[in-house]
Amino acid sequence: MTTTAHEFELLEHTWRDVTPPAARRMLIAAAAAFAGRGYHATTTRDIAAQAGMSPAAVYIHYRSKEDLLFQISRIGHRRALEMLTGVTETEPVARMAAAVKAFSSWHAEFHLTARVVQYELTALTPEHHAEVVELRREIESTVREMIEDGVAAGAFEVPDVRGAVLAVLSLCIDVARWYKPGGRRTPESIGTLYADLVLRMLSA
Amino acid sequence: MTTTAHEFELLEHTWRDVTPPAARRMLIAAAAAFAGRGYHATTTRDIAAQAGMSPAAVYIHYRSKEDLLFQISRIGHRRALEMLTGVTETEPVARMAAAVKAFSSWHAEFHLTARVVQYELTALTPEHHAEVVELRREIESTVREMIEDGVAAGAFEVPDVRGAVLAVLSLCIDVARWYKPGGRRTPESIGTLYADLVLRMLSA
Repeated sequence: MTTTAHEFELLEHTWRDVTPPAARRMLIAAAAAFAGRGYHATTTRDIAAQAGMSPAAVYIHYRSKEDLLFQISRIGHRRALEMLTGVTETEPVARMAAAVKAFSSWHAEFHLTARVVQYELTALTPEHHAEVVELRREIESTVREMIEDGVAAGAFEVPDVRGAVLAVLSLCIDVARWYKPGGRRTPESIGTLYADLVLRMLSA
Repeated sequence: MTTTAHEFELLEHTWRDVTPPAARRMLIAAAAAFAGRGYHATTTRDIAAQAGMSPAAVYIHYRSKEDLLFQISRIGHRRALEMLTGVTETEPVARMAAAVKAFSSWHAEFHLTARVVQYELTALTPEHHAEVVELRREIESTVREMIEDGVAAGAFEVPDVRGAVLAVLSLCIDVARWYKPGGRRTPESIGTLYADLVLRMLSA
């Protein structure tokens, strides 16, 4: 899989806060390479070449290829979590709809980063993996709280809350697998569709 | 990611019909390696070593590494399709529940094969990709027909049928990503949970 110019722009946007620019260019090159050929098939030399830098320059900013993956995974998970915690609605149904809309749209728009984040977890060191698992738990507990609040308020009817959390997150995350930029569905329209489907799942 | 003894047993089961035994051993070794480190990071030499054969022996049965991937993808998609077409129920609600149960359980039980099938599509040659896309269209149209029949019978209420097809398949397929053998949820219990959630999505 090759990365299109549009997809590079999206990666630029995803990683816009990373400084200095050389470190940012390397993260973008690494995310594109990991998404395209997989973590294990990518060398730091490939990443340096794609970033237009020398292989040695990578080690000024990152300890290793795994360190690049960890930064992508850590920042990627934080961004995804922010999609849920950034919701301002307080009424349970509106809150869940807004959260699902933001979270699923993010997985469409930033599908390359999201794929790396989801598919290369097992390549992290045990310490880095533990740190990312902590972020994943926060994502889960944020959604669980939203569902529990809705059940408590009588807005949702959910026989298996943990099962519903799993299904809601899975549905949104899998957008990163099938989404194609320029296809029939935009990130925005996926968000609208999924908010409706999730509210139905919760019998809102 | 290393493949456990239990996961090898499941791969043995998945590929039980492939003959001769040497060809089967190679497919199993290839599926485990592709699921573990990715297609691009795996060599035919790795596959031969894992199958306990010489690198030259691979070429007696398969034209190339890509040919191994194609066989895994083609047979994997056919098995997944059979989960949907093998349903004997005719009443729309019972039929959809049985199909979702079988399809999602399959993606749990055969998660290693399903991951390869879903994540390595872009590594296929254009001809092989086209053949697999045909099977994917059959999977989609089988589910679309089930939903349309239910809508026509007044059993489902679905504003966006194509959107619902996408979400139902995505939800079931993504089980292959998060499922862990020996975890809280068995393939059977995932099937039961997902059948209920999908019927809710379709307002059955």
